[in-house]
Order: sequence, then C-alpha cells, then structure tokens
Amino acid sequence: MNPAPLSGLYAPSLSLLTDLYQLTMAYGYWQQGMQDREAVFHLYFRKPPFGGGYAVAAGLAYAVDWLKELHFSADDLAYLGSLRGSKGTALFDPKFLDYLRDLRFTCDVDAVAEGTVVFGNEPLVRVQGPLLQAQLVETALLTLVNFQTLIATKAARIREVAGSDQILEFGLRRAQGFDGGLSASRAAYLGGADGTSNVLAGQRFGIPVRGTHAHSWVMAFGDEETAFAAYAQAFPDDSVFLVDTYDTLEGVRHAINVARQMRAQGHELGGIRLDSGDLAYLSREARALLDEAGFTNTRIVASNDLEENLIISLKQQGARIDTWGVGTQLVTAYNQPALGGVYKLAALRKPDNSGWDYTVKLSEQIVKTSIPGILQVRRYENEKGQPRADMLYNIAEPLPESLTIVDPTDLTRRRPIRSTTFRELLEPIFRQGELVHQLPTLAESRARALQEVQSLDPSIRRFLNPHVYPVGLEATLHDYRTQLILEKRPQRPA
Amino acid sequence: MNPAPLSGLYAPSLSLLTDLYQLTMAYGYWQQGMQDREAVFHLYFRKPPFGGGYAVAAGLAYAVDWLKELHFSADDLAYLGSLRGSKGTALFDPKFLDYLRDLRFTCDVDAVAEGTVVFGNEPLVRVQGPLLQAQLVETALLTLVNFQTLIATKAARIREVAGSDQILEFGLRRAQGFDGGLSASRAAYLGGADGTSNVLAGQRFGIPVRGTHAHSWVMAFGDEETAFAAYAQAFPDDSVFLVDTYDTLEGVRHAINVARQMRAQGHELGGIRLDSGDLAYLSREARALLDEAGFTNTRIVASNDLEENLIISLKQQGARIDTWGVGTQLVTAYNQPALGGVYKLAALRKPDNSGWDYTVKLSEQIVKTSIPGILQVRRYENEKGQPRADMLYNIAEPLPESLTIVDPTDLTRRRPIRSTTFRELLEPIFRQGELVHQLPTLAESRARALQEVQSLDPSIRRFLNPHVYPVGLEATLHDYRTQLILEKRPQRPA
Repeated sequence: MNPAPLSGLYAPSLSLLTDLYQLTMAYGYWQQGMQDREAVFHLYFRKPPFGGGYAVAAGLAYAVDWLKELHFSADDLAYLGSLRGSKGTALFDPKFLDYLRDLRFTCDVDAVAEGTVVFGNEPLVRVQGPLLQAQLVETALLTLVNFQTLIATKAARIREVAGSDQILEFGLRRAQGFDGGLSASRAAYLGGADGTSNVLAGQRFGIPVRGTHAHSWVMAFGDEETAFAAYAQAFPDDSVFLVDTYDTLEGVRHAINVARQMRAQGHELGGIRLDSGDLAYLSREARALLDEAGFTNTRIVASNDLEENLIISLKQQGARIDTWGVGTQLVTAYNQPALGGVYKLAALRKPDNSGWDYTVKLSEQIVKTSIPGILQVRRYENEKGQPRADMLYNIAEPLPESLTIVDPTDLTRRRPIRSTTFRELLEPIFRQGELVHQLPTLAESRARALQEVQSLDPSIRRFLNPHVYPVGLEATLHDYRTQLILEKRPQRPA
Repeated sequence: MNPAPLSGLYAPSLSLLTDLYQLTMAYGYWQQGMQDREAVFHLYFRKPPFGGGYAVAAGLAYAVDWLKELHFSADDLAYLGSLRGSKGTALFDPKFLDYLRDLRFTCDVDAVAEGTVVFGNEPLVRVQGPLLQAQLVETALLTLVNFQTLIATKAARIREVAGSDQILEFGLRRAQGFDGGLSASRAAYLGGADGTSNVLAGQRFGIPVRGTHAHSWVMAFGDEETAFAAYAQAFPDDSVFLVDTYDTLEGVRHAINVARQMRAQGHELGGIRLDSGDLAYLSREARALLDEAGFTNTRIVASNDLEENLIISLKQQGARIDTWGVGTQLVTAYNQPALGGVYKLAALRKPDNSGWDYTVKLSEQIVKTSIPGILQVRRYENEKGQPRADMLYNIAEPLPESLTIVDPTDLTRRRPIRSTTFRELLEPIFRQGELVHQLPTLAESRARALQEVQSLDPSIRRFLNPHVYPVGLEATLHDYRTQLILEKRPQRPA
C-alpha cells in the first residue's frame, strides 16, 4: 500500500481521525452493554498558554463540522476489520463493526463560542450522551480545539502589543502540515491578525489575503530598480517592495527612485518590507529616507521571526514599523507549541437511571484532579461589561441562594458572589446529535475576541506575572469534589 | 460566507495552498513575458534541528502528490478573480487567470529520497523549469517538507535513545491541526517510531496502530479491577491496563489480580501503562511487583511528556520501561517546532538562452547567503558504507580532475577528496512535469532512515555538541560564489 498522502484526504470520512483506544474502549463498552449509559465529558485546559492570564477559545467550527460528518464509511470499517491482535485474530468482532456502521451521533454538545475569553479549568466543550459516543469524539475535539485556541491566543497577544498597527500572518511555509497552516491562519485571524498570506485560507474563510514579493523576484531581474519597477507595473496601487536582497538601505534608496517614477504616473508606493538585520535601526533609517524624499505615507512592513516580546522590544527602541509580518512564531506558537487541553469524564448515569454518579480523576497534583458534575460556566460582569469572576457549577444540582466561589486549587481562597449580572458561557450546539446552533461568521468571532480581550483588566492581559482571573467552583460543588477525592484517594498511614 | 472548515477540504484542488506573493509574482512574470525563463530553485535548511548533527529527510511523498495535482480549478480562479486591490479594481488581469486555467506543471524535480540523512545547506529538492512555475510551488514544498523532516528527525533522536525498546506515537490530540497530526504520525514512523495511536494514519499509511484505554474507562466502572477485567474480556491477548487513575502502585496490584484471572483462562496480560508521577521510581516498583507475582513478561509502557532527554534521564535512573509512549513532544517537535527550510533561486537562463546566470541572495551573515548553481549532493562513503563527507557541486559546469571541498562558512576549512566511492543524493522525480520516479513505500523509507542514521559516526549522532559532518562546496563552485558575493555586495569605504 502506497497511497498518495493528500489525494482525497477528506472523502469519504475523517471519522478515523482518532486514537485507537477510543475504538477499543467503544468495543469494550458495547460488549459490556454500556454503550448507551449516559455520560458527561468536559474539554478544558488547566493553564492559559505562554504564561499568560487568559486564552481565546477557537476551533469550534471545525469541531462542529467533524461531529456533523461523524460516521464510519465502508472503507473505515474495512480497515477496522483488517486489524489483528497479537494472536493474529481480528481485533474487533464483526458484529461491533455492524454496530459502528449504523452509529449516528446523538449527543448533546454545549460549547463556548469562538472568540470568547476563557481561563483554566473552564469547560470549552461539554458532551453529554451515550457513553460510547461521548468517549469516541475525544481525540478529534481535542485536536481541533487545542490548536486553534492556542493560535488565537497567540494572535491576541500580538494584537495586544501591536495596538492599531497592522498584523499580517505569513506562516504557512513553516506550519505543521497543510492544515497546521490553514487552521492557524483561521485562528490567527480570529485572535486579531488583519490578514494572511495563505490564499487557501482566504478562499475558504474569507480572510483578507496580502503579499509582497520574494527575494527571488529581485534576483530574477538582477537589479532592484528594474525588479521594483516591474512589480509596480503589475500592481501600481498595491506594491510593497522587499528591500533587503543585497543591502537594506541601498534597497530603500532604490525603492524611493521607483516610487518617484510611480508618483509621476499618479501612483503611490504602498510600502517597503524589511526582512533581516536590525529592524529597529533599519526601520528608523528607512523612515527618515522615505520621509525626506516625501514618501511619508509609505508604510514600513517588517518580518523575521517576530513575536510579541520582540515587537515590544522594537517599539521600545523606537522602531518605525507600521505592519508586522508574523510567521513561524505565530502559526506554530513557537514558545509553547501545544495547549494541554484534556477531556475528562465527569458524570455517569446510575445503572438504574435514578441519578448521576459524578466521577473524578485523581492525581498527585491537585491542579490535575478533574472536576465532577455537569458543568456550566457563569461569568459575572460589572456594570461596564468587564468580567469580574467566573463560577463553575453543576447544572444538575440546585444552586444555594447565597453563592460563594472557591479556588479549586486553594480552598482558602473564596469569594462571595454579590453581582447579579452574568452570562453563561456554554451554549447549546447539538441536541441529540442535531445541530441547533447557527455558528457566527469568522468575522463575528474575531470581533468578539477583540472586544472580549479588551474588556479584560490590563493586569490580566499583561505578559509578566499576570493577575490570575478568579475562577472558582460554586461552594457546594467544591465541597462535594473534596469529599469525592477523599473517598477515592487511598489513605496511607504515615 | 461561512463554509464548513473540513468538509470537502481537498476537492477539487489544494493549489491555493500557497502564499499570495507566489501569485502576484506569477502575474508579474507573466506580464513581463518572463514566465518561461528557465530557473533553478533549491529547497534546503541551514542547520539541523534540535542542535543536533543531522536531519532525516521526509515529506517528499506529500510534495509529489501536491505537484501531481497542481492545477487551478474553476473555484480557485473565481476566488482569484474576486480579489481586489486598494483602489477596488481587480488584483489580477482576467487574461492572467486564463493563463492559470491552462497552466500545467512542466518542471523537472530532483529530490533526496525520504529517510535519507541530510545536513545543512544540502538541497532536499531542486526544481528546474519555467520561472513562474518553479516559483509558484515554493510555499507548498516548504510546508510539506519542512514539517515532516522536522518530525522524522525528532523520531530518529528518540529511536537513538530508546535503543531496541518500542516507541509508540500518541500525539494526535495535541497536534497542530488534523494534518499536523496525520503527517506527524507518518513522519514519526518514518523516523523510527514503531506504531501510532492515530487510526487515520494507520488506514492511510499502513502504520501499525496501538492503543490501551483512558482513565475514563476506569472511572466508568468505578473500580479498577472491574474495569481491567472488562477490558481483558474485550482484548484477552492484547490488553494494556492504565494503572494511575487513582494511585499507581495500587493500580499495579489491581492489574496483577486481574492478570492472575486472565492467566487462569489461558491469557497473558500484555502490559501496564504509567502516565504520571515519578516514572523512574514507579516503573521500578511496578516491575518488582509484577516479577514477584510471576508476570515477568508483562511490559511496562510509560507516557507523560516524554522526549529524548527525559528518556536518557529515566534510563540513567534505572527505570524499567519497555515501551515509550511519546506524544506532544514528538508530534509538535516541542523544543523546536519549526524547521527553517528555505527555497532559493540559484540559476536563471540568460535571456539569449546562451547559458546560465547564477544568482545569490546576500545576507549580513554568511551562513544565510545562498549558494548559486544547479546543485547536486555527492556523498562520499568509506568501505563500510559510512558517510565521510558531502560535496555540493554545480552539475552545469565541468568538475576539475582533482576535487576539494570548502566549508561554505569558513574558506580555510578545506578537504581534498580522495575517496572514489560515492552516491548522488538528488534523484529525478519529475521530468517536464511527468512523474518518473516510483516512490518507495513508507516501510522502505523507514528502513532507509534507520539504516542511514545507524551508519553515521556516533560523534555526529550525539546530542550535546555533535561533531559537524563535513559538507563543502566543490572548490571551483566556492570560488565562483565568493566572486559573485563580492560583485553584489556594496563595498562601503570604512
């Protein structure tokens, strides 16, 4: 077997985009007759990425699309039927494959809208339904939500430091596979980038596409002025010249010479791009040369391994950069290339259907111990709409009249809830497998992200030792969780 | 527009998986009548990743697939026709879109086989053909080759320290998008992993798939022994029990109890999995418990953010781990999540067709200055087939009788070539756009990678300050390059 890796990748199904253990567990649940036991799972991360104070939720549109299409095609089943165990016998009973053939997704899914600011321990997705199905979707949900949330958050941080400057995402060539590039372009835009170089992302998602030219363009013409003039002929009102093929400041002078010819013909040079060297020094010198020559509106675009801390540093050094071209560092989230989102079982219907058994995964570290219940996130806001505190509570149990939240990792940190202004973050997306939610457009999600990040207190947005936004368990949930941990953890005598 | 992100992703074309500037340059070349000028580009990286001494080439099968399918569909052209410049007019002349509609790939492509060990500055892919086309394919080639080469190299490093232990790749849930996961599984296997949890990768590429169960399996049954026994019922000869849901060593005892019941029925427990805590201590204790109970063949699988340095450390601490489950760190290449491969113009036919103009991209740093010519990589080997030195030379110029290689970054480092045993790494893949190469199977590429890495001197394979393998420019090429740099670089008076 030597299949072409890309051809027909998606058709007819991506349902095998999962870990084998989801299918072995599915087989086990089916064999035990537990496949339809009602279960509740939460997808959440423990800490915001990059040492920051928040994350921007993203990836739900991909997840919805994957869930909508969930089914096992004949090819999928043939492959699963071909798997052998160590004794050479079929790994799966053919009757189980028949079961998979007829399987349709019938879970309820609630999720936080893309672009919403989220914090550690908060469910981004809650799946409730037959145990087998709710387990089966774990891997794909994690793959699709973890990465895009990571990249949207990275983009939000870059937006934070870029202020009103333009941010262009240029990362496709260094992305992790073609969808690593495509979904990164989407998430980067959602988190605050203004455009992308990725044409496929432009086509599929309506993201504005931008581009200049490569060094090879200049090399193909031999000298810069000829190359710039040819580019200006193609794009008289949309030219940005890359000036560092041979020598940056000489390149700026050549750009100015061509810009003069353009102006004589009624066109203005859009910008120049710096792609190497000391960007602080070179941008100041380039700005001076451009201004002196009367090209005060010609923008300076910079690129070269830019990320939020480097942008801060360049601004502190008085760099005169109008547009930040951000590539590798953004699309791979270079300084933390994975978000550690997890998907944990939190409740299971009692076998007699009389109520819920809540479940907890222990750990040596309290921070890794899961939260039982059927959780909703309630965000309390002040009169300006600024988030003040989030409460996780179990929607299957009555709320006490007087509410208090307790830090899940420090029971002495408590806050009574006085505010009555709140919104609930998890919205119904699927009901019994039917999509019941009209997803917002990408532009709407982006607008939400920009607005929500801005609404955070600056102390939460800062990069160094950000203030920890209060996320607590409603006190009765906290007490219940503590009791459950005590029951489950072996009490070894000292 | 609010398209479903995954549905029909590939159909009908992935040709827009590129940076916009490839298309704006294409337009410019077409406008200047330069579209068919013969050009030569090389794809290479400058330094092996992870501070290591080598890389393992991968991704070519994806690149070949992409190139084979290269064409602009009606949807692609409609999208390009919809793009507007800053003045609101169409970015591209409709006649250019007609040209793209009829465009077929007609380049020659030579490339290094997947699984080949490669070093800095060595072309992994050479594209020769019409300038417009050879430029157009840059982004996709980089995206597909950069990432898989990175991951195959990471896997080779993990293979290096794992010795004959089993390596399973478990990373899909933390991968960068679905293809970040799928192509990582492929490249990880190519570089030396033994299997993957990723079922889609198993289906598409024939990679062995492996899996155990999740913590949720245990939680769904409430207690470990019931959960383990149920799993053993489903997979009597292929069970690995995850033992750390509540308390690891208690979990091992529960696994042993169930293993005894299995043995009584003629089955053997395959293994246990540790997923948290002090893996050195816990694996030693678990081994002792298993051995004491007579389960000396029960394997110990470990996972939890494992990577090559942690594996070395665990082995030094006497960990008793048989199978390494490696996820996030491998599939994202966590400590260096991008390979900085570049694609540089190196030669251009003279306008009168009389010969070649060789081109060079300068940089303030000599290490970033490109290499002109139409390059081949000749690998000299000793009588045992071990690589001794690589020579980059220009196939369009005659070779001198007596060969010397010169370090491209230090002209005083030279070696005369005495050996006459060599192989040439770049093989013909496409000729005038036709695929002329039968790609090896993934298993063959994996075997090649294992063999080639093993053939390297240990000093090159070591992680800390590896010996730099000699890669030099053939001396006449080196002299020519120096002359070209001197011509192009402005000579500013001091």
